[in-house]
Amino acid sequence: MSPSGRTSIGLLGHGTVGSAFAELLKERAAEIERFNGRRPVISGVLTRTRGSFDEIVAGADLVVELIGGIDPAKEYVLAALRAGKHVVTANKQLLSQHGEELFEVAREHDVRLRFEAAVAGAVPVVRVLEESLSATPIERIHGIVNGTTNFILTEMARGARYEEALSEAQRRGYAEADPSDDVSGRDAAAKMAILARLAFGAPVRLDDVPYEGIEHLQSDDLEYARELGLGLKLIGTAERRDGGLSVRVYPAFLYAGHPLSSVSGPFNAVTVESEAITEITLSGPGAGGRQTASAVLGDVVSVMTGGARPPAPPLELRLLEDVASAFYVHLEVADRPGVLAAVTQVLGEQGVSIKSVVQRGMQENARLVMVTHAIAESRLRAAIELLEVSEFIRSTPRTIRVIEEEFG
Amino acid sequence: MSPSGRTSIGLLGHGTVGSAFAELLKERAAEIERFNGRRPVISGVLTRTRGSFDEIVAGADLVVELIGGIDPAKEYVLAALRAGKHVVTANKQLLSQHGEELFEVAREHDVRLRFEAAVAGAVPVVRVLEESLSATPIERIHGIVNGTTNFILTEMARGARYEEALSEAQRRGYAEADPSDDVSGRDAAAKMAILARLAFGAPVRLDDVPYEGIEHLQSDDLEYARELGLGLKLIGTAERRDGGLSVRVYPAFLYAGHPLSSVSGPFNAVTVESEAITEITLSGPGAGGRQTASAVLGDVVSVMTGGARPPAPPLELRLLEDVASAFYVHLEVADRPGVLAAVTQVLGEQGVSIKSVVQRGMQENARLVMVTHAIAESRLRAAIELLEVSEFIRSTPRTIRVIEEEFG
Repeated sequence: MSPSGRTSIGLLGHGTVGSAFAELLKERAAEIERFNGRRPVISGVLTRTRGSFDEIVAGADLVVELIGGIDPAKEYVLAALRAGKHVVTANKQLLSQHGEELFEVAREHDVRLRFEAAVAGAVPVVRVLEESLSATPIERIHGIVNGTTNFILTEMARGARYEEALSEAQRRGYAEADPSDDVSGRDAAAKMAILARLAFGAPVRLDDVPYEGIEHLQSDDLEYARELGLGLKLIGTAERRDGGLSVRVYPAFLYAGHPLSSVSGPFNAVTVESEAITEITLSGPGAGGRQTASAVLGDVVSVMTGGARPPAPPLELRLLEDVASAFYVHLEVADRPGVLAAVTQVLGEQGVSIKSVVQRGMQENARLVMVTHAIAESRLRAAIELLEVSEFIRSTPRTIRVIEEEFG
Repeated sequence: MSPSGRTSIGLLGHGTVGSAFAELLKERAAEIERFNGRRPVISGVLTRTRGSFDEIVAGADLVVELIGGIDPAKEYVLAALRAGKHVVTANKQLLSQHGEELFEVAREHDVRLRFEAAVAGAVPVVRVLEESLSATPIERIHGIVNGTTNFILTEMARGARYEEALSEAQRRGYAEADPSDDVSGRDAAAKMAILARLAFGAPVRLDDVPYEGIEHLQSDDLEYARELGLGLKLIGTAERRDGGLSVRVYPAFLYAGHPLSSVSGPFNAVTVESEAITEITLSGPGAGGRQTASAVLGDVVSVMTGGARPPAPPLELRLLEDVASAFYVHLEVADRPGVLAAVTQVLGEQGVSIKSVVQRGMQENARLVMVTHAIAESRLRAAIELLEVSEFIRSTPRTIRVIEEEFG
């Protein structure tokens, strides 16, 4: 359909990423042609006010969807795939909510559907999971997949309060006016759903991923982290456990030396663990217009060179909800004899065993900071609920997961 | 040629990596078939004492070369490519010395030649450079691409002497009985030649890459590094400069916070810088039998799914030999008035300007440790030669490059 020697691209959406993509493509077209023998050319652009979707798709070899959101992006992508066009998209909402449907249509029509830019900006984790690692069974992925929250936590680690750090992120354009998708962990959950599908073959939807955000973290949690040499990060985890799969997003203390503990500022990083490779880490800037455009263009080149296929049909893998972690537990208690014993008794009755404890006085109250051994979340929560109503407790208990060194 | 649904693999070499590959393939064949619709099967194995090369190639869709070295690996790989077979190899010597010839034959016969395992063990830097980054012009690569020397430097940073650290590396199987290829920097130079070809399109051969090793580093260089919060690493650099290309391997101090400064033990890591993506880092274990086998199998899967082509014909790009760096300079001098002035005068006359200096007494002599501003290597060397013959110098001056933060 395209004149020979050209690959025609229909571009849907012309916002920040769309226009950065068009610009980068123009800069790089000659070099891409030199490598691949074909020159990528934008043959049509659809914006809210301009262009006809049907005409653009008819004239394209490949459709790049950069509208975002579900509606109308979903209908456009499905129609393009059904018309036998390859699709490149950066749309994490779409993939994390309707991925299986899209993959199935792509397989049926034997076209490519690529989405490197949907997960970690310019960090090529999608490609690495799809290709390099198909040779090795993955055990676990830990990721910092939201640059906004990582920036905020980095500022808080330097002493800023949450509100100050959030304002600074907004001022620099890292956070939106309504930051709730980022700070709630929901954005990271969407990305982890996509990564989990790639790494483990099981269908995981955004709604399957429990997430906690960073809104409730206190400056003194970060102070403890600093004192203990730990990083406090918003972590997405996808891992095999007990024959099932657990995918979740949560703030976590990372032991010093963990590859993710030194990732600071608006960066993304993903660690992939497997028996055969032990552990590899990919890191780089999170989404920015030009970084995202670069990942999109990488996918375009990959389609042009006949790269990877859509994911295979899904495997059944039980999604686990209640997994064990070590926990940091922060309690304010009445400062009087016997309270520590009472606390440890309540915890012990729920099977929570304590690895380390620090007690500090603060006027009439004392602060108890403990790290537990690994315990199922449900049991930790049951113990905390009992503590919460104890007469010696002075404020709402706080808990944060701890990721410990396994092979130390 | 293969029964439908199978991809026949001719395996050349059955040493540590070859046998790890055969084992991993057996474990993963069913999963690979599920993803790709075809099952990879080893149809023949050539060892020093068993098998016929001609028969093995005739019966294969794809040849995996794990013999290593130039002879007979080169003839085998060329013959396989000429017979229209795809080739996967882990052979860094072959690629860094005869890469262009192999790439050209692969292009002529329209077959794939893949070599992820040749560079950084399980860290998928070859794939990332070939595919993801074809969309962005790369400015610079810094790499820790030799796990043996990184292990030794990590031990030295903890206080071990060079000889102790080397013995420990040998005891753990990270270093060979004759470690000269690793500790001299030559192994890293071969890998940087391969990465430079991929990143910049210019033909770079091992012989074009100047390298310095770690044999001459002293424990007190690492002490200074520790005091200053710097990492001391064996770094390979490939970068555009003044319209040319510089590729080199050398021990270097890295500013704190550089993504490579925290890479410790027998690990590899590569940082790729480009305007569009700023900087991404890939890290993971260096070569081990099973890691290398995993990278080889990843390439096999990539060939099966119709992945990337051989590199395009080479670009002409001038190779630079004399590039500017900041330097750490360590001098032992007579401890008397006027010596510092004399030193700075000699340096100043060669255009070397000093950024910071620390002076310490040690009995009659003093130790001067300076960091210079960026200066062409040839001029720094000229200055050092003049100093070396000055009457106030008490031992051979030592210099180590410093990689500074550019965007700090």
